[in-house]
Amino acid sequence: MSKPLILVSNDDGITSNGIKKLVSLMAQIGDVLVVAPDSPQSGMGHAITVGDTLRLTENRLFGDQIPAYECSGTPADCVKLAKHHLLKDRKPDLVVSGINHGSNTSISVLYSGTMSAAIEAAIEGTPAIGFSLCDYDTDAEMDHVDEFILKIAREALTKGIPKGIALNVNIPAHQNQKIRGIKVCRQANARWEEEFDQRIDPHGRKYFWMIGNFVNHDKGEDNDEWAIANNYISLVPCQFDLTGHHAIRLLNDEWDI
Amino acid sequence: MSKPLILVSNDDGITSNGIKKLVSLMAQIGDVLVVAPDSPQSGMGHAITVGDTLRLTENRLFGDQIPAYECSGTPADCVKLAKHHLLKDRKPDLVVSGINHGSNTSISVLYSGTMSAAIEAAIEGTPAIGFSLCDYDTDAEMDHVDEFILKIAREALTKGIPKGIALNVNIPAHQNQKIRGIKVCRQANARWEEEFDQRIDPHGRKYFWMIGNFVNHDKGEDNDEWAIANNYISLVPCQFDLTGHHAIRLLNDEWDI
Repeated sequence: MSKPLILVSNDDGITSNGIKKLVSLMAQIGDVLVVAPDSPQSGMGHAITVGDTLRLTENRLFGDQIPAYECSGTPADCVKLAKHHLLKDRKPDLVVSGINHGSNTSISVLYSGTMSAAIEAAIEGTPAIGFSLCDYDTDAEMDHVDEFILKIAREALTKGIPKGIALNVNIPAHQNQKIRGIKVCRQANARWEEEFDQRIDPHGRKYFWMIGNFVNHDKGEDNDEWAIANNYISLVPCQFDLTGHHAIRLLNDEWDI
Repeated sequence: MSKPLILVSNDDGITSNGIKKLVSLMAQIGDVLVVAPDSPQSGMGHAITVGDTLRLTENRLFGDQIPAYECSGTPADCVKLAKHHLLKDRKPDLVVSGINHGSNTSISVLYSGTMSAAIEAAIEGTPAIGFSLCDYDTDAEMDHVDEFILKIAREALTKGIPKGIALNVNIPAHQNQKIRGIKVCRQANARWEEEFDQRIDPHGRKYFWMIGNFVNHDKGEDNDEWAIANNYISLVPCQFDLTGHHAIRLLNDEWDI
């Protein structure tokens, strides 16, 4: 029987340790194609390249058996180029993105380039998962992730993912205690509160660095922040229909337009 | 009684005709502050600037009475800088973004810089609306929008917008027939199917232009694409909790993790 085709992308760039790990895991269960940004794209959200050109260059970063391409664009561009230029005849059975170096829980999903690659694939009906490790160290220990990522990817390949959904999987940083399991969660009600560090450049002009402080307002135990804090892997089904259906009635009732 | 404070941003850049129109309308009902990108940011999705510095420069583009700043970052950056640097003491009563030169109906909401400014504000609890004109001509006629934008902004100021929601408002291009009204809608089930136009640069190397073809699969009459096609203004309540709550149970039932 032929192996499934798995497309791997990320947002930290094709040379990061996270994608190297993810490619090595996916190669155990499928034929792998890698298309990933040629430079870090963190915080790019669901950006696409509309007013500029794109480059795509083949490389041997993952050995002779695994075709790999670096792309000048965003994670969403990578998925589009893979599906509509490189893979015209054979469609991927699964798209995975990551492993991101840093958490994409809660509201961070909106800013996440990792998840934009997964959501882009889901829009076109391909099962897709973004994996993030809650450790910002680019050399973080990540061998504790293997069994869980393989389990989730195998379930996606055999049972599929509900239509209109991409999975946002976050994994606790390595610690002495073993991970307690995988929790299907909702997105926590938390957000970033920004401060701006104002500085003066050598030419006497002001500039800013954005500093984000993550603030969790959520008291529930069914959300991704709780899961990570309690040493569970969080798995949030994310939809790309942003309609707040409950609000349609509210607006029709209360507004006079 | 003091006037409400209205923050205006966009994604086409601070010199576009769309933001000029939106500022002139908002100045009729509130005190206006403009913070908008110094260059076009179309397709930027919910990108933020995390690995680079930001610039913010005051200008007089909208006259002496309306403070205005151009920002080197994305639409989401503009809202963050406005709220957490420029406006530390007084919070805006309303954030509006646009008027975008081009449609942001259906799945385009995900790629939309216009809507990312509105959603960024909504995350922090401020009523927020993105306005888009379904006409890509940067010199498009837009006097037909005035009464509707004013009506929607006034309703938002007096009645508020449901918590967790930003409004995505799309307005049909100018035509001979008068607009039939405003419809509260859901996001249409449509998507972009991409093609890549491959070319060779003067140095003999390949590059690509992305070409998007919009394909509407939605047969309903309660969605934004239907509204625009039938000369209504569409108003979609968009949420930033991406959790597909229905899928939590499906995954818990069907998956073995």
